Amino acid sequence: MTLTSKKAPSSALQEKAGISQPESISSQSVEHIQHSRKIQPSAEALVQGILAGNITALSRAITLVESTNPMHLAKANTIINSCLPHANQSVRIGITGVPGVGKSTFIEAFGKHLTSLGKKVAVLAVDPSSTISHGSILGDKTRMEELVKDPNAFIRPSASGETLGGVARKTRETITLCEAAGFDTIIIETVGVGQSETAVHSMVDFFLLLKIAGAGDELQGIKRGIMEMADAIVINKADGDNIKKAQFAKVEFNRALHLFPAKKSGWIPTTATCSALTSEGIPEVWNTITEFLKVTQTNSYFFEKRKEQNQFWMLETINDQLKSNFFTNPEIHQLLESTKKAVQNDEISPFAAATILLEKYFK
Amino acid sequence: MTLTSKKAPSSALQEKAGISQPESISSQSVEHIQHSRKIQPSAEALVQGILAGNITALSRAITLVESTNPMHLAKANTIINSCLPHANQSVRIGITGVPGVGKSTFIEAFGKHLTSLGKKVAVLAVDPSSTISHGSILGDKTRMEELVKDPNAFIRPSASGETLGGVARKTRETITLCEAAGFDTIIIETVGVGQSETAVHSMVDFFLLLKIAGAGDELQGIKRGIMEMADAIVINKADGDNIKKAQFAKVEFNRALHLFPAKKSGWIPTTATCSALTSEGIPEVWNTITEFLKVTQTNSYFFEKRKEQNQFWMLETINDQLKSNFFTNPEIHQLLESTKKAVQNDEISPFAAATILLEKYFK
Repeated sequence: MTLTSKKAPSSALQEKAGISQPESISSQSVEHIQHSRKIQPSAEALVQGILAGNITALSRAITLVESTNPMHLAKANTIINSCLPHANQSVRIGITGVPGVGKSTFIEAFGKHLTSLGKKVAVLAVDPSSTISHGSILGDKTRMEELVKDPNAFIRPSASGETLGGVARKTRETITLCEAAGFDTIIIETVGVGQSETAVHSMVDFFLLLKIAGAGDELQGIKRGIMEMADAIVINKADGDNIKKAQFAKVEFNRALHLFPAKKSGWIPTTATCSALTSEGIPEVWNTITEFLKVTQTNSYFFEKRKEQNQFWMLETINDQLKSNFFTNPEIHQLLESTKKAVQNDEISPFAAATILLEKYFK
Repeated sequence: MTLTSKKAPSSALQEKAGISQPESISSQSVEHIQHSRKIQPSAEALVQGILAGNITALSRAITLVESTNPMHLAKANTIINSCLPHANQSVRIGITGVPGVGKSTFIEAFGKHLTSLGKKVAVLAVDPSSTISHGSILGDKTRMEELVKDPNAFIRPSASGETLGGVARKTRETITLCEAAGFDTIIIETVGVGQSETAVHSMVDFFLLLKIAGAGDELQGIKRGIMEMADAIVINKADGDNIKKAQFAKVEFNRALHLFPAKKSGWIPTTATCSALTSEGIPEVWNTITEFLKVTQTNSYFFEKRKEQNQFWMLETINDQLKSNFFTNPEIHQLLESTKKAVQNDEISPFAAATILLEKYFK
């Protein structure tokens, strides 16, 4: 045998001819690995993991909640119902504001303050537009680079889904899972467009509207009705040359808030300034929320509202499904466009048109 | 034959014995009258009457719209569809305000001003509570004693009905009938409680919020969100010692309105003071509305909004009926209370509960 031989180099593992060669990777091991990768942990295992505060179990359960596979959803329902008795020990804070007010940097500063107080913080988002734009508001985690690394913080971008109802359901069930996993402060971020703030308002205890001074922000951008939902208006970016303008805006908003009717909660909405950049005013935002909790837990509004919210979401889900079943009915679908046009052009009254469609559906 | 005879007195109509006596009242005539009282004018006759501006025909058609008898409703639908091509030539004005702001006296003064300009004014009301309290806001017509007598004004109290949806449908169809009868200015009054202003807002072109200065009215009574719906806030009772206070309130509200986001209509909401008592400021309210019409008819918002409203009411009616069909289903009805309780007490998630009920309904 010469060194220039084309034969494959012999190996130390080479056995004598006549004896069958074992493969270098055991096919049994491969099968075992492939099999175990396919097996998902059982619902019970995930519940145990969640209750032990295991983040991997929590993430896996959230993935089931977000799935469109009916088997996954059935499993998710089992998990959620098992988690429910361990949930609810939290404060749920909604944060909204138009793009540019600095929601992400605010949540970074606010979240860090909370974890420094020993809180466990989960940050979720409701952003149905993320499906279309492929850019979730929480997708860019780089804006929360310190909070992302914090072991006491859990950040999960907006669930995707075609409808706000779908995204809202997923987020609301994710809240339950996070609470069962020991997160005591849930922050839900949303952008001030469309109906998403109304949905977020219906799943939180405290609703915070983030604003900036000047820039015409008072006059446009934020949806009508949001200001009346707010338990606090916080004017961000109150730093540098901006401080005076921010303080003036605070006075203006405070005056406006007093023109609104009193809230059922007994809470009088507050206004404040802060700088997410310097953390000035950030601890005060949390103090306001603890004050709010004191007031609303003493007068029981806090607990009543959560019960109401539960019922609201049950009825809302029923309503969504009834409508979806109606409008996806092939016969209705076929008739709908021409009927809509006839109604718009005053050829038929809206009620007569509804009657025709309903009779077709129920017959 | 003596005068003391007990026999019945003879009559000039008395015929000779042996001939059968006709009855003094023709039974045929009685039948004819009874029959004609039962016959309602045909749908065609009512439509003709309405288009000729006949108030009796209009009132009869509205009574059909308000009926719960399915045959009446079918007839009402025929009439409304025939009236539709002749409707829509009007301005529809919603007026809301808490009890005590003087809605009735305002409408009396405002309505008289409109008829003096040659307008034909119909005043309707949406007040679902009237069924329970048996006291419609427009029931007390004595507060509009001059307008009631005005041949160019038509006042109709709130339709009764158990649900806001029902009352809203009846009022909206009544608008069509009034317009077809030649009324060019439709005023719809509602009290600032519950959801009725939202319903009224969805059937008018212009929404006016009536207020009074002081009396804590800024802080309570009116429902949240109403201020943002208003196209104008008018502070009533700006007379005598009240003038200064009213003017101050006007400035305050004006400042607050400017903090709201811009309206899709392109209209900037206005504030004004008036006195329904002295008629001071009443013509200016109408001037504001004509200005509003100029702006929104030029930019087409006026027409687009009406089309949207038509579609809204079609979808709203469908939605109402789908829900009603679901919740009156005996099986659902039986399950609902226990399910609600389980959801409120966090024994089951709102979504899992909805799924159970929906599966029962659709199976």
